[in-house]
Amino acid sequence: MMKFALEEALKSGDDIPVGAVVVKDGEIVASAHNERELTNDVTAHAEIVAIRKAQQKLRNWRLAECELYVTLEPCPMCAWAILQSRIKTVYFGSYDRNYGALSEKLDLRTLNNSSTKVYGGIMEKECDKLLSDYFKKLRS
Amino acid sequence: MMKFALEEALKSGDDIPVGAVVVKDGEIVASAHNERELTNDVTAHAEIVAIRKAQQKLRNWRLAECELYVTLEPCPMCAWAILQSRIKTVYFGSYDRNYGALSEKLDLRTLNNSSTKVYGGIMEKECDKLLSDYFKKLRS
Repeated sequence: MMKFALEEALKSGDDIPVGAVVVKDGEIVASAHNERELTNDVTAHAEIVAIRKAQQKLRNWRLAECELYVTLEPCPMCAWAILQSRIKTVYFGSYDRNYGALSEKLDLRTLNNSSTKVYGGIMEKECDKLLSDYFKKLRS
Repeated sequence: MMKFALEEALKSGDDIPVGAVVVKDGEIVASAHNERELTNDVTAHAEIVAIRKAQQKLRNWRLAECELYVTLEPCPMCAWAILQSRIKTVYFGSYDRNYGALSEKLDLRTLNNSSTKVYGGIMEKECDKLLSDYFKKLRS
């Protein structure tokens, strides 16, 4: 599933490449990529777009039976949307040492005693490379 | 402007009453209320909806010349959307002692050294009453 998320990330165009996939019972319910620049929407991170799509598809804002795969550790905005939607498990690729909100530096799960499980570093090398290639290109 | 936000909050229907107004040069650019239940969208907090509207209207995700008025202290999701959009000043009414993310317990501005100014407790009594009336009705 992280491979699908990586493929989604590649669609991000001028935006920082991040891809997300919402999965239920082993099947993809929704997938999305970062489209902040494209849509002029600061909330249009891959996770938010994927969650919104999944909610509309399932006609429910509660995604307690869903898992989320995302290539980069969620920021506080996305992390809180994830926890509020009650997604049961999050798998992320790269750690975001600056603004990540689901690991050691800041783990928003402590705020609401969330039962959401989080696994970081899934296909980390591939996810890291995607980001470093993007920033290398940006600087060149 | 907080009065407008309070009027918006009253439109929240079955949702927890929260209203938000985005202001630029003293004029309202966008206003919104909480519509999570109405739209089956966990991200549809008043602040997020108002920010998305303002961005579309101004055709820019950067809202550096805007102020936000909201009846309740923003949660981590909304707070990070606000900080990412670079809104210059936030005025909120009620403090959220559990999940507020722009005051003492948790202030996400520390994460990115944000220059966004925040003033809490504006028309606090009126904002508190709106929420307590809602929860009283819910329990009755």
